[in-house]
Amino acid sequence: MIIQLQQGVPADVKENIFEAVKGIGYKANEVKTQAGHYLVAIGKKDFDIRSIGQLPGVADIYRVSDEYKLISRKWRVEPTLIDLGDGVVIGEGNFSIMAGPCSIENERQIELVVEHLKVNNVKIMRGGVFKPRSSPYAFRGLGIDGLKMFHQICSANGIKIITEVMQVSQIEEMIDYVDVFQVGARNSQNFNLLDSLGEAQKPVLLKRGISGTIEELLQAAEYIFSNGNEKIMLCERGIRGYEKAYRNILDLNAVPVLKEKTHLPVIVDPSHGIGLRDYVEPMSLAAVMAGADGVIYETHQKPEEAFSDGQQTVNFQESERLIKRMRKAFELRENF
Amino acid sequence: MIIQLQQGVPADVKENIFEAVKGIGYKANEVKTQAGHYLVAIGKKDFDIRSIGQLPGVADIYRVSDEYKLISRKWRVEPTLIDLGDGVVIGEGNFSIMAGPCSIENERQIELVVEHLKVNNVKIMRGGVFKPRSSPYAFRGLGIDGLKMFHQICSANGIKIITEVMQVSQIEEMIDYVDVFQVGARNSQNFNLLDSLGEAQKPVLLKRGISGTIEELLQAAEYIFSNGNEKIMLCERGIRGYEKAYRNILDLNAVPVLKEKTHLPVIVDPSHGIGLRDYVEPMSLAAVMAGADGVIYETHQKPEEAFSDGQQTVNFQESERLIKRMRKAFELRENF
Amino acid sequence: MIIQLQQGVPADVKENIFEAVKGIGYKANEVKTQAGHYLVAIGKKDFDIRSIGQLPGVADIYRVSDEYKLISRKWRVEPTLIDLGDGVVIGEGNFSIMAGPCSIENERQIELVVEHLKVNNVKIMRGGVFKPRSSPYAFRGLGIDGLKMFHQICSANGIKIITEVMQVSQIEEMIDYVDVFQVGARNSQNFNLLDSLGEAQKPVLLKRGISGTIEELLQAAEYIFSNGNEKIMLCERGIRGYEKAYRNILDLNAVPVLKEKTHLPVIVDPSHGIGLRDYVEPMSLAAVMAGADGVIYETHQKPEEAFSDGQQTVNFQESERLIKRMRKAFELRENF
Amino acid sequence: MIIQLQQGVPADVKENIFEAVKGIGYKANEVKTQAGHYLVAIGKKDFDIRSIGQLPGVADIYRVSDEYKLISRKWRVEPTLIDLGDGVVIGEGNFSIMAGPCSIENERQIELVVEHLKVNNVKIMRGGVFKPRSSPYAFRGLGIDGLKMFHQICSANGIKIITEVMQVSQIEEMIDYVDVFQVGARNSQNFNLLDSLGEAQKPVLLKRGISGTIEELLQAAEYIFSNGNEKIMLCERGIRGYEKAYRNILDLNAVPVLKEKTHLPVIVDPSHGIGLRDYVEPMSLAAVMAGADGVIYETHQKPEEAFSDGQQTVNFQESERLIKRMRKAFELRENF
Repeated sequence: MIIQLQQGVPADVKENIFEAVKGIGYKANEVKTQAGHYLVAIGKKDFDIRSIGQLPGVADIYRVSDEYKLISRKWRVEPTLIDLGDGVVIGEGNFSIMAGPCSIENERQIELVVEHLKVNNVKIMRGGVFKPRSSPYAFRGLGIDGLKMFHQICSANGIKIITEVMQVSQIEEMIDYVDVFQVGARNSQNFNLLDSLGEAQKPVLLKRGISGTIEELLQAAEYIFSNGNEKIMLCERGIRGYEKAYRNILDLNAVPVLKEKTHLPVIVDPSHGIGLRDYVEPMSLAAVMAGADGVIYETHQKPEEAFSDGQQTVNFQESERLIKRMRKAFELRENF
Repeated sequence: MIIQLQQGVPADVKENIFEAVKGIGYKANEVKTQAGHYLVAIGKKDFDIRSIGQLPGVADIYRVSDEYKLISRKWRVEPTLIDLGDGVVIGEGNFSIMAGPCSIENERQIELVVEHLKVNNVKIMRGGVFKPRSSPYAFRGLGIDGLKMFHQICSANGIKIITEVMQVSQIEEMIDYVDVFQVGARNSQNFNLLDSLGEAQKPVLLKRGISGTIEELLQAAEYIFSNGNEKIMLCERGIRGYEKAYRNILDLNAVPVLKEKTHLPVIVDPSHGIGLRDYVEPMSLAAVMAGADGVIYETHQKPEEAFSDGQQTVNFQESERLIKRMRKAFELRENF
Repeated sequence: MIIQLQQGVPADVKENIFEAVKGIGYKANEVKTQAGHYLVAIGKKDFDIRSIGQLPGVADIYRVSDEYKLISRKWRVEPTLIDLGDGVVIGEGNFSIMAGPCSIENERQIELVVEHLKVNNVKIMRGGVFKPRSSPYAFRGLGIDGLKMFHQICSANGIKIITEVMQVSQIEEMIDYVDVFQVGARNSQNFNLLDSLGEAQKPVLLKRGISGTIEELLQAAEYIFSNGNEKIMLCERGIRGYEKAYRNILDLNAVPVLKEKTHLPVIVDPSHGIGLRDYVEPMSLAAVMAGADGVIYETHQKPEEAFSDGQQTVNFQESERLIKRMRKAFELRENF
Repeated sequence: MIIQLQQGVPADVKENIFEAVKGIGYKANEVKTQAGHYLVAIGKKDFDIRSIGQLPGVADIYRVSDEYKLISRKWRVEPTLIDLGDGVVIGEGNFSIMAGPCSIENERQIELVVEHLKVNNVKIMRGGVFKPRSSPYAFRGLGIDGLKMFHQICSANGIKIITEVMQVSQIEEMIDYVDVFQVGARNSQNFNLLDSLGEAQKPVLLKRGISGTIEELLQAAEYIFSNGNEKIMLCERGIRGYEKAYRNILDLNAVPVLKEKTHLPVIVDPSHGIGLRDYVEPMSLAAVMAGADGVIYETHQKPEEAFSDGQQTVNFQESERLIKRMRKAFELRENF
């Protein structure tokens, strides 16, 4: 059950509501976000919802039977829009393109990608500076200095940054240089990281786990929201399967299902989803038609020389064609 | 290695080629289809391909390193087109819609579906008369009498029929009443059935196994082709996975990958692929954008009363909207 | 609901029971096996079970809520024992070893394996004569002539034969030469084959599908039983998964779960279950401890020269050690 | 390539080796653990290994082609033994039993479990105080105060503690109160946590990811070792699959495969591996026979009242029987 509190509710009024919730045997979790003030009440007993709904300080009250609550579309029907500033808004009705290399490599590379994005009117650049790698001996990214360089070039060009955060202690050092924190598949149930990102208030793109369920993804988002941050987008990036013809199984079923279950934006990552450069375009277009609110993919000036993920990275020419086609597909979808 | 023989090659000339192939230590499989005459030579030794290529009776010769040969696009670049007659052609450049109920139930139902298809200019109706069911006590379909009724109504209305065949002994009794034999997911490696369908010459839609690999699907198609039948289309229908939010994982990655590996048409079944009626439309549209040559889906006048699969069956109103949108998406794709 | 009929129930008495079952809105399936005569009544309405139970001709009546009925342990608590003759009995309390090559290759090979089995007091030899192969160009087995040779040597030496049947039409030609029909993973939902094996009365070893569920395996067994054959054993042989370090995932969880759900014997195939010769022994021993009633594995006089599956086949020395250890492990288990 | 340095190698001698490694185009990673001092050299070029091997300060040199190096059995043949003190040693030749509740609940519970373990001569107790939970609203454990209480009771009774650590910042506060840090399945690729546990020197039990590969598990262990900690054990705890009859698929194939690939001890968690109390015993015994060096399972004085995981937790009576049987099975295995 979600109890939406009135803005600026006095402490004693709030306390009174807490007591009432406890009185019916429910556990109350207070949630204060950028946008609202809620009590999430967890329990199983049946009771007359009006006994709480009529209390002073209660703006509204909803029953939500899902395990996740605040991110449920049963509660909030209107879609969440995430404003990155400068007119860059992510969410239903928009189509957000996020492109860039797997890893940030050097200044020249960033400049080339930024130029490519600007020419094509793309507003968000992806690029990793902290890289999760299976082997401890592999390249782990340029780190915080790479991020500062990344930020300097992008901010000078009006480009927003999305980049992966891997642990709680990185949030503080990164926060001034990123526009969206990405949580990778391997950290999709790193609950301490999710808690801290909830407190951090910056927008978060949360990737589905390597074999994460829809339910787990939604509950992971609930961690962030319930810690105070409503600015969450979900990302389908392929799940692990038995098939050896491609890297992962891009599970586009997830797109319409997530769109129905939650008010959060849904983004698709076709690069990891299929893992083969030649097929990034058809899978991106399929994602648009499945209902995605955006696509995040890997591009590089010379994919064959990329530090990582070259085999799934498109070059700028392919990227340009992809951008144009995705926009046409989105236009068709919006005008159905 | 595929050795394409000249049409009407005399027996002794052919025998001579066979001997030459054996002479280099290869095993030769003779394949005679509706459209051509081939030797598929299997072996590992290296040799000068011209020694065979220059023999009398050899029209052309190709090395194909894939495990499957005759269906490989490395050999035959131009796409296979399957002509069902009356201007109904399946394959690249066309977009084939196949719709109808899970099970054929009665005359009235067939008439209603046929009427719905005609209004929407859909030329192929699906409908099962032999139903594979997990439980021996479940409804197993109307059988051959149902098929005759199905055929009578469809042929009177210019509608082609696709229906599932489950065993070798059914081929002969069904063959005059079907336009396309469907091989279901459970029979995707029923090799005797594939052999016999190769001999039967009717077009075949071959579904991917419940957790079949791309390689297995292609090799299953090779069974049919190498027994004499080139009229094969492949169907992605969802694979089994851990996710409980939907019935199967519609693996659209398979579409562009199959399109590159084989010259055969690729069809998508979104109804089984996601298993939930509300999401059939977005997944169908995604399939179009991924590059599918057609879609096969379930529709019924009253899905909630269908004998089987009602939860994944759209009604006629939904079906009509879906048809229109798929055609628009296909038009966009063809004009990119 | 299972209604056990009295032996030799007169036609009119039986008819009367049928009518009563229909009268309460249930569908009645008559099942007559080697051992009993039953009506399986399928329906959902609630009714007083005594109204049927007290009818003349009814020996006993049971409610079984599982989807499968006759193979359920909820109905029949005592384990099924399958007697192959000459004192060879499969089922709880026994531990059955079935060993032999993947494919029957020639007379000499059969003789060597038979000799190895006799020395180690193993009574059942496995060996394929009809081989399901992914590629149409691969070796498909020696066929019926190979089976006759196989049978001649084994019967002369008191060894029972288990071999795979792939299609309905093979049953009749094979039946006199086999002791147990094996249904392979790819045919685990070939329902026509299961129906026919139900009528055929010979013992059947039914393998779990490549990614078959426990429920599907049990329902497939119900097909056989409900067509008249109680002599069924189930076989866990590994399921398909994402792991590349071995061929399949041997799912030993299935063993205790199946043992609880059904009265049928449960056999494990470690050779396909892990697919690597070196690990066949530990997985076989694990299978014994998990509660298996037997193990079926591949052995060959020279695994590296086997026509098929050599990489997962143990040699006779390894086989002998394995047999001794499995028997010790079984003895320990029985004496816990 | 692993270069084992002589103990107490002087800085300049070491520097010289570094230079030589760089000189052949390899990247050198220095690793200093409790037990040794190594350079792990990563590169692809071919060179004469003796050119490095003969340098002053080099004790030994090994080529290891695996992606993981220091944990490979190709390099170190003798098994790793982990000594927890007081005669409690984990690793080949021993059989370690670790038992206790999913969550530490209160003093009384700890005392009851400790008493149960002492009676049965079990030396290691498991119990979570920081609990990873899918939902943010679920019980997350008693935290550090719970751990202190847990430690007080166990240390007074000679029982060692294994408990889960979820994030870097917990290591320091926990380290004095634990004997083995457990890394849960969700954190199996939390590389920062692995790095820090490498530095922390305490023994670590590393669980396989929810759908982790053998290769990923081994590389995760390499993270810990290469950061300075050799005291690592690996844990198979079931992988995610499509089967709904049990919680996970206990992949016992992993046991013999891991035992061959690495010198680290391999532990099995049957409680999570099958997720159903009744089957914990057969799966534990199967694990012993598959070659496990130990088993970790959940037990509670009243499983039906446990705060979490009650459905997969055995009571003390079942636990006692299990302990006895595992020891007998281990004895049989050791005496084969």
